[in-house]
Amino acid sequence: MTLSEFDLIERFFSDCGTPRDDVILGVGDDAAVLRVAPGMDLVATLDTLVEGVHFLPGTDAQALGYKSLAVNLSDLAAMGAEPLWATLSLTLPEAAPDWVDGFRAGFCSLAREAGVRLVGGDTTRGHRAVSVEAKGLVPRGMALRRSGARVGDGIFVTGTLGDAGLALRALRDGLPVEDLAFLRARLDRPQARVAVGRSLRAVASAAIDISDGLLADLAHVLGASGVGGVVWLQRLPLSAPVRHYLEAGGDWAIPAAAGDDYELCFTVPAANQGALEKLLGGLPCPVTRIGEITDGAGLRVLEPDGREFRAPRAGYDHFVRDA
Amino acid sequence: MTLSEFDLIERFFSDCGTPRDDVILGVGDDAAVLRVAPGMDLVATLDTLVEGVHFLPGTDAQALGYKSLAVNLSDLAAMGAEPLWATLSLTLPEAAPDWVDGFRAGFCSLAREAGVRLVGGDTTRGHRAVSVEAKGLVPRGMALRRSGARVGDGIFVTGTLGDAGLALRALRDGLPVEDLAFLRARLDRPQARVAVGRSLRAVASAAIDISDGLLADLAHVLGASGVGGVVWLQRLPLSAPVRHYLEAGGDWAIPAAAGDDYELCFTVPAANQGALEKLLGGLPCPVTRIGEITDGAGLRVLEPDGREFRAPRAGYDHFVRDA
Repeated sequence: MTLSEFDLIERFFSDCGTPRDDVILGVGDDAAVLRVAPGMDLVATLDTLVEGVHFLPGTDAQALGYKSLAVNLSDLAAMGAEPLWATLSLTLPEAAPDWVDGFRAGFCSLAREAGVRLVGGDTTRGHRAVSVEAKGLVPRGMALRRSGARVGDGIFVTGTLGDAGLALRALRDGLPVEDLAFLRARLDRPQARVAVGRSLRAVASAAIDISDGLLADLAHVLGASGVGGVVWLQRLPLSAPVRHYLEAGGDWAIPAAAGDDYELCFTVPAANQGALEKLLGGLPCPVTRIGEITDGAGLRVLEPDGREFRAPRAGYDHFVRDA
Repeated sequence: MTLSEFDLIERFFSDCGTPRDDVILGVGDDAAVLRVAPGMDLVATLDTLVEGVHFLPGTDAQALGYKSLAVNLSDLAAMGAEPLWATLSLTLPEAAPDWVDGFRAGFCSLAREAGVRLVGGDTTRGHRAVSVEAKGLVPRGMALRRSGARVGDGIFVTGTLGDAGLALRALRDGLPVEDLAFLRARLDRPQARVAVGRSLRAVASAAIDISDGLLADLAHVLGASGVGGVVWLQRLPLSAPVRHYLEAGGDWAIPAAAGDDYELCFTVPAANQGALEKLLGGLPCPVTRIGEITDGAGLRVLEPDGREFRAPRAGYDHFVRDA
């Protein structure tokens, strides 16, 4: 069976996600036409996942469909934006209808869940890769940036750290772990912290999503803000499998530096910490204070025994890893 | 030399294109923040070019940089939109600074020329491919669609057809041609018809850009509009090399069905043909009437001798071609 480029988009993606009145023209023309509500700024992020780099060959199509949208929603969450629209470019070695159908199921189910409409796309032949551009809106001037952290702000993270990294070690290197199903779900189906990001707009001074690993991403915040920071490893929020892995002598780099967590890392000024406390009960995940913004430059990371932690590498870098 | 993902974007693309006041936050955060002027609709299009499918291995980096933006500007032109912003995802087998520098030069020079700002991006390792999402604005409700053609409308195209297709035959199959430099420039550096698209907003009933070949793209307009059409091949606007190629017994599929022309094909109601005439003097390229919208379904294509032309394939299809 041969599917043409035109068929593939029209057949599988013409009704994907939540129908929206602000989509004037969706899939099927030269471009999408979208209506931006007055008083809002547009927020847009483009990410590409490549087989063998960002996901393992043989990754379930449905999981990949889900994740390729989730990682972009996570970027919007880190800006405090409400996700509305997505475009999708799919590069495939062959147009296997079952694979495309699985991918569509994963992608479109998350789109529906998140209130997002797929409004356009492109299908090409080649090494398997997925590019998604997610778009959302934020009230004018309210987008969260990386550059707003100030000395004395607390450093916080959502959820737990290291689950995806430990899953990858288990799947790729055969490391025995506890509760692989849970860890694998965290790797394959990350929960973009959209509601948290939205709540943080009025409270946080800076935010980023943890895609490259906590320390690397936090370093981006510190660099953009022109400040330093200290993080206490014993404060990192951990799931049971990661905690037990560390208790058995595991590597702190898993929660501190492995990528793919898609939690938010953000900073909150002392003046707003009361407001943050009030938010906590309404949030769908825990929020943990792990450190503090300091004077000067650079990030100090302290192990439970007070020693300085040396990260094995500066986060996830596609041109360095596996090189 | 190793360039990290972060370096690559920051070093090469942080000042790319025309600085714009409506870019609230550009390259360097989790997402771009953009301000949409009141009364305007957002128009967005995402396209991917893959090495070996859309461009030949060894294609000059600068030409590729230029073309990867141009093909997206062409989609915006077909909607009648004014291009403003772009995001770029670059997948590369290695981070060769010379290659990236060449790509940047081509991409950013066109961005500057077109008044577009690069506002975000992503760099990954893998088989060489480029995804660009271009965004623009169009006055509310004024976007040109594929679906507006009505019986009796004239069918028009901009520029000349078949130049890129003949260049590809020459480069890939060694076909001897006249003025390869001109043809190759048409293949490598297509001129998106942005000014024409903008002028056509008030005049055309439907529009599309010719990326897959005239007949395939016109068929999309006919299908979306629920009408038929007739095209006379002897009316197709041809450059001298393509005209001479046909005079020497060449294949009409080159101007009629080869892709990569990036001209506009549009339809104009009889009532607006006076308005179109008035526009012509101010346009940067010729506009030629090549056919007419008819009742019923399907496209009739007539050769100069009046015989029905049978296209060898239905345009450029990435999952059929070379299969």
